Amino acid sequence: MAKYATDVAIVGAGPSGLFMVFEAGFLGYKAVVLDALPQIGGQLAALYPEKPIYDVPAHPAILAGQLVEQLHTQAAPYGPEYLLGEPVLGLEGSAGHFTLFTASHEVSAKVVVVAGGGGMFTPRKPTQLQNLAEYEHTGAVRYAVTDKKSLAGHDVVLAGGGDSAVDWAVELAHIARHVHVMHRRADFRAADETVRQMKELEKAGKITLHTPYQLAELVGGGGVLETVVVEDLDGGKREIAASHVVCCFGLAPNAGPLGEWGLGWDKGLIKVDRATMQTQREGVLCIGDMADYEGKVALILTGFAEAAVAAKRVQGVINPERKFKVQYSTSKGVPGVG
Amino acid sequence: MAKYATDVAIVGAGPSGLFMVFEAGFLGYKAVVLDALPQIGGQLAALYPEKPIYDVPAHPAILAGQLVEQLHTQAAPYGPEYLLGEPVLGLEGSAGHFTLFTASHEVSAKVVVVAGGGGMFTPRKPTQLQNLAEYEHTGAVRYAVTDKKSLAGHDVVLAGGGDSAVDWAVELAHIARHVHVMHRRADFRAADETVRQMKELEKAGKITLHTPYQLAELVGGGGVLETVVVEDLDGGKREIAASHVVCCFGLAPNAGPLGEWGLGWDKGLIKVDRATMQTQREGVLCIGDMADYEGKVALILTGFAEAAVAAKRVQGVINPERKFKVQYSTSKGVPGVG
Repeated sequence: MAKYATDVAIVGAGPSGLFMVFEAGFLGYKAVVLDALPQIGGQLAALYPEKPIYDVPAHPAILAGQLVEQLHTQAAPYGPEYLLGEPVLGLEGSAGHFTLFTASHEVSAKVVVVAGGGGMFTPRKPTQLQNLAEYEHTGAVRYAVTDKKSLAGHDVVLAGGGDSAVDWAVELAHIARHVHVMHRRADFRAADETVRQMKELEKAGKITLHTPYQLAELVGGGGVLETVVVEDLDGGKREIAASHVVCCFGLAPNAGPLGEWGLGWDKGLIKVDRATMQTQREGVLCIGDMADYEGKVALILTGFAEAAVAAKRVQGVINPERKFKVQYSTSKGVPGVG
Repeated sequence: MAKYATDVAIVGAGPSGLFMVFEAGFLGYKAVVLDALPQIGGQLAALYPEKPIYDVPAHPAILAGQLVEQLHTQAAPYGPEYLLGEPVLGLEGSAGHFTLFTASHEVSAKVVVVAGGGGMFTPRKPTQLQNLAEYEHTGAVRYAVTDKKSLAGHDVVLAGGGDSAVDWAVELAHIARHVHVMHRRADFRAADETVRQMKELEKAGKITLHTPYQLAELVGGGGVLETVVVEDLDGGKREIAASHVVCCFGLAPNAGPLGEWGLGWDKGLIKVDRATMQTQREGVLCIGDMADYEGKVALILTGFAEAAVAAKRVQGVINPERKFKVQYSTSKGVPGVG
């Protein structure tokens, strides 16, 4: 268990978290940044590093990956420590004396700034089904297809009506023995061309569509699935012989351990006092997309401004005797830069 | 009188005003930008274009002038109209139907966004003096030295104790017949080296220091000054034979016409509702350094975030029927750019 001691522990290495390093550093506070992802940049690095962004002020166009690099460079003079690839599992203590735990790190910090962005996302599950866990355990029920070959020659139920359901239906129709697509509405919210391909495969007898139906029951034993019972809105049932169900119901924000920190977690967001970015737990602040208040406009540039407000609060917690005064970087400079 | 009609009139072409053009444009609204200065960029362009700034997010270091150029480029796709070099003199009308006047322009706009930065600054005056206007009128009392030669051979009182008072005392000592420096404290708040030079000139008989003294009376007639009476804290008086007084008491924020728009002007700032950037006059918003609310951190990056909030409000005023949804530039792009 490697131990670290710092002024500010920043949970989340997305754009708000990275700029928080700069703002805290500018006021003289050291930071450790923790992120479950193996690299800095949050969604920008993980989901769309090659996409141009047009609304970062004074950057008419900048690639998301480049934005991360600029923020990294800007934070560098303050020597932050980045602890990546491990989610934060626990938070203990109180303002001035917090400890955060990951699987292999222990970080003591005076203030915690949660910059969790969109949060942790996990697949939506058909929680109405009994024995769901039993079939999840054996892979008979899945939320993603990571190994197509394991479904070769099987009867597969594809549940859902969005892009990933339709994409996988078309893809698996060529591998599985038969694909049953089940959706609770008659219409699919997916690319027209893929829906057209799916309907061609239906005509060709490779796919059967069941709409509007919902999952009602899993029948089998010992984790081996034999029949999937689906149900229409009037309670009319159909039995589908199938050994696998792939659920494509999208992702839902998940508090993860954050939900247990007493921050006021609500639908993936944390309510803060806009004037300080303070959550309901003294000394724990929240900035960026995860922070909510009246009039919030969840953009990257908003997170930047919130970092400046949070830095003022960091000083208020760590050095309450020190009067806060806006300092200008043009006059004060930055170590090793100006 | 040239007439313009637009969605949003932005008063102030500093960084917040320029980014407001982008944010309004991104939501589909056209803008006209008005500024008393002859160029865009506000203080950045007028006072320190060559100074590097280190706290603009994702710009580890950028010259103030370059920042203005980037913001100008970013706003360009939305085709704003810039009306520069003339202060806004009047505002009439109400939300949806405003008209702004300058000396030669008339702009009708649905929403007004005041982005006035530090505001208009005017010299602090010794308002306790009777007949002040009479001597101001002839130039016997001045607040700046724009033409040194006009003081050649005269006895001049330099009033004030900051950098500009001391700088001018040293400068004028070589031109005037004699320089009297009068300051209400014993200590000067000016660069050590210049204070040292001033004291050398005192020893050399070119300068006389009067501290701690304040201006008490101007004696003369018809705008021609003969004697300046100064007074110490106990009411003790001195008469100084002098034909000119240069007052260097610093600058004070001045509402200018803004003070008469019913926006809630208070000490150079305007109180706004943080969730909408709405002033107390419906349809007139305020962003940037001039906008005040609890927890405000007056930095450039704060003005950027406020512009995004104000744009939401612009839509609320112009198209109240339209539901506001955060749009991402990565998906939506920008005309002619992405």
